[in-house]
Amino acid sequence: MSSLFHTRLQQLQAAHDTLLAAPNQPQTPGNGIYTRWENPVLTPAHTPLFWRYDLDPATNPFLMERLGVNATFNSGALLWNGRYLLVVRVEGNDRKSFFAIAESPNGIDQFSFWDYPILMPETADPDTNVYDMRLTAHEDGWIYGLFCSERKDMERPHDLSAATAQCGIARTRDLVQWERLPDLITYSGQQRNVVLHPEFVQGKYALYTRPQDGFIEVGSGGGIGWGLTDSMENAEVRDEIIVDGKVYHTIKEVKNGQGPAPLKTPEGWLHLAHGVRNTAAGLRYVLYMFMTDLKEPWRITHAPGGHFIAPEGDERVGDVSNVVFSNGWIRTENDQVFIYYGSSDTRMHVATTSIAQLLDYVKNTPADGFRSTASVAQRYKLIERNLKYHKM
Amino acid sequence: MSSLFHTRLQQLQAAHDTLLAAPNQPQTPGNGIYTRWENPVLTPAHTPLFWRYDLDPATNPFLMERLGVNATFNSGALLWNGRYLLVVRVEGNDRKSFFAIAESPNGIDQFSFWDYPILMPETADPDTNVYDMRLTAHEDGWIYGLFCSERKDMERPHDLSAATAQCGIARTRDLVQWERLPDLITYSGQQRNVVLHPEFVQGKYALYTRPQDGFIEVGSGGGIGWGLTDSMENAEVRDEIIVDGKVYHTIKEVKNGQGPAPLKTPEGWLHLAHGVRNTAAGLRYVLYMFMTDLKEPWRITHAPGGHFIAPEGDERVGDVSNVVFSNGWIRTENDQVFIYYGSSDTRMHVATTSIAQLLDYVKNTPADGFRSTASVAQRYKLIERNLKYHKM
Repeated sequence: MSSLFHTRLQQLQAAHDTLLAAPNQPQTPGNGIYTRWENPVLTPAHTPLFWRYDLDPATNPFLMERLGVNATFNSGALLWNGRYLLVVRVEGNDRKSFFAIAESPNGIDQFSFWDYPILMPETADPDTNVYDMRLTAHEDGWIYGLFCSERKDMERPHDLSAATAQCGIARTRDLVQWERLPDLITYSGQQRNVVLHPEFVQGKYALYTRPQDGFIEVGSGGGIGWGLTDSMENAEVRDEIIVDGKVYHTIKEVKNGQGPAPLKTPEGWLHLAHGVRNTAAGLRYVLYMFMTDLKEPWRITHAPGGHFIAPEGDERVGDVSNVVFSNGWIRTENDQVFIYYGSSDTRMHVATTSIAQLLDYVKNTPADGFRSTASVAQRYKLIERNLKYHKM
Repeated sequence: MSSLFHTRLQQLQAAHDTLLAAPNQPQTPGNGIYTRWENPVLTPAHTPLFWRYDLDPATNPFLMERLGVNATFNSGALLWNGRYLLVVRVEGNDRKSFFAIAESPNGIDQFSFWDYPILMPETADPDTNVYDMRLTAHEDGWIYGLFCSERKDMERPHDLSAATAQCGIARTRDLVQWERLPDLITYSGQQRNVVLHPEFVQGKYALYTRPQDGFIEVGSGGGIGWGLTDSMENAEVRDEIIVDGKVYHTIKEVKNGQGPAPLKTPEGWLHLAHGVRNTAAGLRYVLYMFMTDLKEPWRITHAPGGHFIAPEGDERVGDVSNVVFSNGWIRTENDQVFIYYGSSDTRMHVATTSIAQLLDYVKNTPADGFRSTASVAQRYKLIERNLKYHKM
């Protein structure tokens, strides 16, 4: 073993061990709604060295990276035998992404990848790329993973950026063996951000959808949709209704989409979603929340105005800057909630809160008033009440 | 009062008190034209806690933020009874912005908001959003605030990003009570960045305008315009001329606009403006200066080439990255100048200078040569003169 190889291996192992063992710290005092944590929970450097380096000194004397990992982001999440699991979107230097599971004993640090990424079977029409899996432990007993499957748009062969997005579907019982099912069939164009509701509704599987005209642009359609399917083995939604549409001059003016599967509470279903607006520097993605009726999960009962989480500090910059995105959260047995979100298509973070705080948030945050004067009126009401009470 | 509420309140108050009392430091040696200061003078965290939190432990046991503030930026400025006042564009988490006054004893730190934001009356056609107020203490005795009023473009109802921009007008004598006047009428399309000249010209009110074809794009029009109106109570500009147009391959290639009202000097009117070019990562906004004739403020006498202030360090990143924008500056009695500028649509900064420095800058900075070889010739002239003198 060459001295160079040996020295580099020790350095790489030490840095990797230190990174994976690093304790995370809450950011206090925070906004009272949730607590951000100082460190990202996953970065490309968290992936095992044996995923990236050829560790044979005979064939890799410089100990150079053979297969780089570019980003670890937009992860589905699941509490599994007391461990916090993320199904991570891992993107190689070649821009293709795939799914891999990382687990942590506490949900806030020490995330470590399983030895192998997920071997996701293809359909007869191979995926060019797969990403942003939503995990749902359905009451039928299966764990479903719904994800975006992207393929070249063959109707526009000469435009190399022209692609189509559809909803890929897979299921598993052990998170190791995955059964690929046919892609979702809808009649509203392309699909992204499709999420399986965890319970049967009217005896059927229920899906949150996001119909869109094109690959990037939702066009005149868009919004978070809702539809039913008799089966997940041949999933087909014939009719979609819009649960939550786009609205001018809000944080979801350009597009929006369901995040992870909603959380059931005695007062309704808690939803986490993303909203997108345009700026002079490109799109801006933030997270927002709403609550739907317990019996009719397609009917919104509470819609707090504005964003819930927006990019902050180092989160603002990455491969696709000005983005936070969530497709995974975990509720523990004692109703604590771990929100996993990707920042700028590059890395994963956690924010911790509780069902009680989220219910307080969705019920007591004023709804969007849709114009400046209405926002000032909300602010006046709050200020007057506070100044009566005491002044700080 | 719960222990959680009490603990959080103490933490929040301590952090807020520390922030507002933090002394600012000049960045030396700087470029000699102006001095940047280390800390932003205003951030969302500067807004009062009683604007954001419900401070009643009975109704807010988690002491959570009820109405977040997302950004504090693009502020008009005024020296008022010896205090440095900013009329700040405050943006809530709901994306709507409104105006609020923050004041400082010295102009460089300790900015603190007045208890209530400005209650800006609406016209018969309610504003969806209002922002970027230019303050002018006019010789007619009123203080005018001209700002952008944005409304949904009703001619394109299905495009939720389609909006129209016009110039809203208000006036005040005490900065508390504001009288809303009818929006400016022009015949050149939409308007942004309209600024009232502080003196009558030919017995009329004079306005810097920025005619544009669309909401974001200035189209084939654009440039900083100039027009007269008989009255501000029914402001109408029938004819606009272009004071300073867009120019290919300059810092104002895509669009430009007047910043605050110009400053009068014995040698002419000093103007601060913004210029915009396009990049692969979106638009880039920088500030530039020019001087106009004392008697004919629509006629440029000096136009230094290139930018005056461009985003630096942490200024580069924010909700809309790669932007500096100024709509407020203050000249003191002893001709010191405080330039207030927003960075990346997120926070406010100050740069300090003097009338003497700004006159030197506009008179002695070479004009844009419009091509590389001309720029090299300018550089050679400077180098040769310097090397004759001494080499450093």
